[in-house]
Amino acid sequence: MWSRLRFWGAVWIIVSGVAAAGAHPKPNFVFLFADDLGYGDLASYGHPTIRTPNLDRMAAEGMRFTQFYSAANVCTPSRAALLTGRLPIRSGLTRVLFPYSKGGIPDSEVTIAELLKGAGYATACIGKWHLGHLPEYLPTRHGFDRYFGLPYSNDMTTAHNPRAARYNPPPLPLMRGERIIEEEPDQRYLTRRYTEEAVKFIREAVRRRRPFFLYLPYTMPHVPLFASERFRGKSPRGLYGDAVEEIDWSVGEILRALKETGVEENTLVMFSSDNGPWLTKELDGGSAGLLREGKATTWEGGHREPLIAYWPGHVPAGVTTQAFGTMMDVLPTFAALAGVKLPEDLALDGADLSGVLLRNEPGREPLFFYYFREEVWAVRRGPWKLHVKTREPASGKPEAAVRNPPLLYHLGHDPGEQYNVAAGHPDMVEELRALITKHVEETKPGEPQR
Amino acid sequence: MWSRLRFWGAVWIIVSGVAAAGAHPKPNFVFLFADDLGYGDLASYGHPTIRTPNLDRMAAEGMRFTQFYSAANVCTPSRAALLTGRLPIRSGLTRVLFPYSKGGIPDSEVTIAELLKGAGYATACIGKWHLGHLPEYLPTRHGFDRYFGLPYSNDMTTAHNPRAARYNPPPLPLMRGERIIEEEPDQRYLTRRYTEEAVKFIREAVRRRRPFFLYLPYTMPHVPLFASERFRGKSPRGLYGDAVEEIDWSVGEILRALKETGVEENTLVMFSSDNGPWLTKELDGGSAGLLREGKATTWEGGHREPLIAYWPGHVPAGVTTQAFGTMMDVLPTFAALAGVKLPEDLALDGADLSGVLLRNEPGREPLFFYYFREEVWAVRRGPWKLHVKTREPASGKPEAAVRNPPLLYHLGHDPGEQYNVAAGHPDMVEELRALITKHVEETKPGEPQR
Repeated sequence: MWSRLRFWGAVWIIVSGVAAAGAHPKPNFVFLFADDLGYGDLASYGHPTIRTPNLDRMAAEGMRFTQFYSAANVCTPSRAALLTGRLPIRSGLTRVLFPYSKGGIPDSEVTIAELLKGAGYATACIGKWHLGHLPEYLPTRHGFDRYFGLPYSNDMTTAHNPRAARYNPPPLPLMRGERIIEEEPDQRYLTRRYTEEAVKFIREAVRRRRPFFLYLPYTMPHVPLFASERFRGKSPRGLYGDAVEEIDWSVGEILRALKETGVEENTLVMFSSDNGPWLTKELDGGSAGLLREGKATTWEGGHREPLIAYWPGHVPAGVTTQAFGTMMDVLPTFAALAGVKLPEDLALDGADLSGVLLRNEPGREPLFFYYFREEVWAVRRGPWKLHVKTREPASGKPEAAVRNPPLLYHLGHDPGEQYNVAAGHPDMVEELRALITKHVEETKPGEPQR
Repeated sequence: MWSRLRFWGAVWIIVSGVAAAGAHPKPNFVFLFADDLGYGDLASYGHPTIRTPNLDRMAAEGMRFTQFYSAANVCTPSRAALLTGRLPIRSGLTRVLFPYSKGGIPDSEVTIAELLKGAGYATACIGKWHLGHLPEYLPTRHGFDRYFGLPYSNDMTTAHNPRAARYNPPPLPLMRGERIIEEEPDQRYLTRRYTEEAVKFIREAVRRRRPFFLYLPYTMPHVPLFASERFRGKSPRGLYGDAVEEIDWSVGEILRALKETGVEENTLVMFSSDNGPWLTKELDGGSAGLLREGKATTWEGGHREPLIAYWPGHVPAGVTTQAFGTMMDVLPTFAALAGVKLPEDLALDGADLSGVLLRNEPGREPLFFYYFREEVWAVRRGPWKLHVKTREPASGKPEAAVRNPPLLYHLGHDPGEQYNVAAGHPDMVEELRALITKHVEETKPGEPQR
């Protein structure tokens, strides 16, 4: 087991050194994370009927990514990868956790919150956790000073999902710290309550002159959909739009709190989503825009997400970047910006994006492995993507199908994965297939967390 | 036949009156018009691999529409509607004109260029005309002081389209004024040459202290695709992306010319496209994003287009609007902004959008008739759209199919037209069907132009 004490000590020494060298004040970080929002669901990514004026402004005054990937196509592994900078296969968090699960984020994992807390940051997780609901897995045991929210998905209750009866879940818990403070909270008010907690956290941290890390994983727009009275029945997009528009309102409140407390120019704000849209929910699910398929698939619609980065005076305004990035880049990026040195023995799967963010650099060559649970079903290198296994639930083909010969797409020319060009590029097919084999050989799976 | 002399006289009197009343100086107008570019083809509308930094900046500093319609789903009628503010059925320009066509824009039509020229504007059409190539139909006979470009589509030549042999076309003409100055011009340089001509026109008009109207209908990205050396092979999206990225470069040059000549804050610039993407051309065609189908269909992908409006200090920055608008609104909008009174007997199908543009007003209730050639195949009122006839070339169903019962979609909830809800809304089906009947009865078709 990894020694925390030794690690915190090392971090402090490095951080003190950076501070002594007269570096910038440590920036604050806010990571806003929607649930099941698709690549095509924001106005700034082309959605015609969902109104997101605050996110539009973030995009207009910040940077918008078009090649940003979630490490996974479902909740739990996506969040594990975000917070650890590592592939879910390494932590064993490869599947969605349920109220009956015994597993969760292992203590051996280092989270963004732990790294930043060790560097003096105030840290809060406000929203949906989904990395284990038993005490040892809660946010407060993994680097967060504060936690308020649901420990897992909002459909894991018979109150809103009759099919959940098969595993006889307890009433949906709303937690503060490590305590259940309400059962079956009124879901209409979750976005608003998360927002109020988040604003309070920001104000307190600023008052105490602490740099802060706010991780705000919204419960919405995951089915079942809810919105408060102010938003319900208002969006031209229907209830799904109501839920997204309330999130947009929340984003506006967060930005306003940053401005009012005077830390806007010292805070990097990012907005993204954990995985693609739940298309089989039809109009209750979102849209991947021109990308193929959605949640729980290894098509682009399952993994590619909006990412908007906003930091006035630091991240250039009005820029769309095609730089490749993944959710696993967030940890090394925040560490670099905060001047936190990473433990040397940490096997990260992400890379520092600060050159892209601060200097609009083109970034690195895309290399990405698309996992379905514990298996690699596809790989992208540069513009080329190879599928060796697929499923297409939105087209009525939910079963896993081995693709032999594999499917090859050029994601630059054909971002919608419409034209399989494997026959014309046999060498590329073999190279990419070999990449998968090598990756699987080299990647040590962690203890499965179920 | 409509009396021009009397009309110009009337316009002058009104304009003089406005000028005398001490109104703002007359704004310049620049209308940039891509060919076959889809709703999903710009970075600012979600395309992941086409780089359009200049259009992104226009969007970030201007207004982006998500409910803007071309009056037609193919070239000729779309352009006729734009320039006249009227449905193509009225002018008889309901079909694509060919090199063998004898028809064109009737003299009885009043174009934007005629209106503005009558108000003292310098006017230029630089690019693809496609409203008749015989002398009496050319831009110079319909209000444009200057013309440089192709009289019709770039595939109407056997040099780049063997299928054109069936009508034995002449070599593709490049015209200046009413003269053919080149045959089969090198299409790689059309975007660049249009741009140079446009910049020259702007500089001259400003030097002469004339308000101006520049209409720049690009030849690209209509198949066959071309780009100059500087862009060819550069876009991650392939040749289609090269062509669009060169148009984006062109947009940047136009904006730069406006800035350098000091008229940026007195010029309304709009960018749009004539109709949806030519999906049957596969990777040589564009993308409608999450909208269904494309060119030559009455699905949303055929008619809905990007529209970016840019006018620093007048059009609010970074705004996405869901206000409804059509290409036929451009004429009344420009007339209103220029203080030009419209002839009273002119039956317009568009409305003044200046409240949306200048004050971000929500606009009017959508009401739109989707024509396929001379027939109304669909209607939209509010969020509801009814199809009575369809074709789906991108899905291998190019034949026209009568839809009885009709298909009903809610474009707010379901912008991708995926879920037919006709069965649940029989009254709406009947109301919309009756709207079509009434519209057809009331709309007098013009002499067919073929």
